[in-house]
Amino acid sequence: MDQEENAKITSSFESLSRESKELYLHSCVSETEVEPTALQFMKKCVSPNLPLIIREGCKYWPATSKWSHEYLRSVIGNKFVTVAVTPNGYADAIREGQFVLPEERKIKFSDFLDIIENPDKTNGVYYVQKQDSSLVKEFQEIAEDVPKEIVFASLALEKKPDAINFWMGDKRAVTSMHKDPFENIYGVIKGHKDFILIPPTDLPWIPYKTVPQAVYKETTGQFEIVSLEDSDPIPWIDIDPLNPDVEKYPKFKNAHMLRCRVHAGDLLYLPSMWFHHVRQTQGCIAVNYWYDMDYDIKYAYYTMLETLCTGKPPEDYIEPL
Amino acid sequence: MDQEENAKITSSFESLSRESKELYLHSCVSETEVEPTALQFMKKCVSPNLPLIIREGCKYWPATSKWSHEYLRSVIGNKFVTVAVTPNGYADAIREGQFVLPEERKIKFSDFLDIIENPDKTNGVYYVQKQDSSLVKEFQEIAEDVPKEIVFASLALEKKPDAINFWMGDKRAVTSMHKDPFENIYGVIKGHKDFILIPPTDLPWIPYKTVPQAVYKETTGQFEIVSLEDSDPIPWIDIDPLNPDVEKYPKFKNAHMLRCRVHAGDLLYLPSMWFHHVRQTQGCIAVNYWYDMDYDIKYAYYTMLETLCTGKPPEDYIEPL
Repeated sequence: MDQEENAKITSSFESLSRESKELYLHSCVSETEVEPTALQFMKKCVSPNLPLIIREGCKYWPATSKWSHEYLRSVIGNKFVTVAVTPNGYADAIREGQFVLPEERKIKFSDFLDIIENPDKTNGVYYVQKQDSSLVKEFQEIAEDVPKEIVFASLALEKKPDAINFWMGDKRAVTSMHKDPFENIYGVIKGHKDFILIPPTDLPWIPYKTVPQAVYKETTGQFEIVSLEDSDPIPWIDIDPLNPDVEKYPKFKNAHMLRCRVHAGDLLYLPSMWFHHVRQTQGCIAVNYWYDMDYDIKYAYYTMLETLCTGKPPEDYIEPL
Repeated sequence: MDQEENAKITSSFESLSRESKELYLHSCVSETEVEPTALQFMKKCVSPNLPLIIREGCKYWPATSKWSHEYLRSVIGNKFVTVAVTPNGYADAIREGQFVLPEERKIKFSDFLDIIENPDKTNGVYYVQKQDSSLVKEFQEIAEDVPKEIVFASLALEKKPDAINFWMGDKRAVTSMHKDPFENIYGVIKGHKDFILIPPTDLPWIPYKTVPQAVYKETTGQFEIVSLEDSDPIPWIDIDPLNPDVEKYPKFKNAHMLRCRVHAGDLLYLPSMWFHHVRQTQGCIAVNYWYDMDYDIKYAYYTMLETLCTGKPPEDYIEPL
């Protein structure tokens, strides 16, 4: 490669990293104990694309006091709900050179609670994590226990949530590093969640790999990885931030990892396009609100960065099957 | 240059241009007849870095009805004020391979009004254009006729204006294409101004040239260009958007030029880092409010773009002397 041009690109990535750190990124996720107004949320969070924890932001939602296992058994115990099952907790992650989806099963919610209460008695790791507005679609009987929208966010963004999702699962279940084109408000109802966040400006340091898609299938007590022959290969992040292979990907050391713990009763604003990796305590329950992001100047700049990293103009996102 | 790397940079500039046009830029400057709230201003203008004309936004300022030549003569006619004088109307522009500053003179405001009323009787083009909060420093007797701040902007940006400037001048005076690190609210009091605006994402198409600094000096009725020997060379835009030399700079055709006319009584929000070129009617009066910009993710991306264009990380701005 031509050294002059190569140096320009490297230098531009370094400028972005340095200016991001010096100008707009903080060394940790900002916190507040007072719910922001719509204007504050727009000015301090959405416009600069910066995360915020609102301590006790969902403490007084009915769900936070009501959603015991007993209550959930009594109200929705007999319902069949969609559960993601994997051998190791890694759904939607690269395994053996493939992007492996979890096995989706429909089981009674009371059976799911039995598994969460006694995880060692069952083969596999169970996680309710369907992201198709699952709270409204699959858990409508308890949807009234949380607000229909986050008012300061709806006012700021001038829209209603696009989806509200219900999350509950095993402490071994890990959401692998990825990003979403949504402004995300995450409310933890029970337990706590640990987030690792990396800003979109760190894209040059994040290793992507385009891999074929596959899915876990449990047969005779063993999990197999089954290729999805008709699916398109998908670009996914090939690094575990908990144990990064910096021999293979030395540039990952340049990424600005922000870690935060979101406790029961707290809200996290997770800005659009931020890379995030999530873990939780056993039986942790959360509800998140996705608001469609605005495709504005920040996104236009991001596409430039993506083109520089990949050498190709961005295509429409290939969604996992 | 290596073709692959060169192609990456070119492709990234094209992505940025295309996505900017498709996603966030409009084909003309948005207009409203209703003053935005602070939240609307933040959401629709500052966050996406988009200009807005507020028609009749300063129609009811006392200045709009009071500032006749008679009134100004009676209140500040005897004051000495700073006037920029050039032979041709081009102050702070590249001329004969130099960045040429105007000759600054202190003259009585009534003499300046005489010249504006009879521009052909005087050698040179006169423009009151000092940008050091001149309204407050040099025109304090009439400063009460406009608001001390633009309330929706101060609330949105959570700060007071950094400077308020008074502008009045000859129709031949042109503000050459440049950008400022300020959120800018421009109120036209008399006459009208014609703006050409180009978004910061078009930086790759805008030709910069680093040139030595000089200043106009009129001696014995002739304007000379006098080099400023002790000054640093300054990077400035080497194109006239009214008559662009596209033979010399063919890429300039890619720039998205938005044109707008701001009439007496209108406000223009001119976002930080947008390139702008300004002309006006004879004797046009305007007042503008500069708010310090936030150096956020958008600015970090801009520095990346600048590094790609120049091959060097951005240095502190070299201000004209």
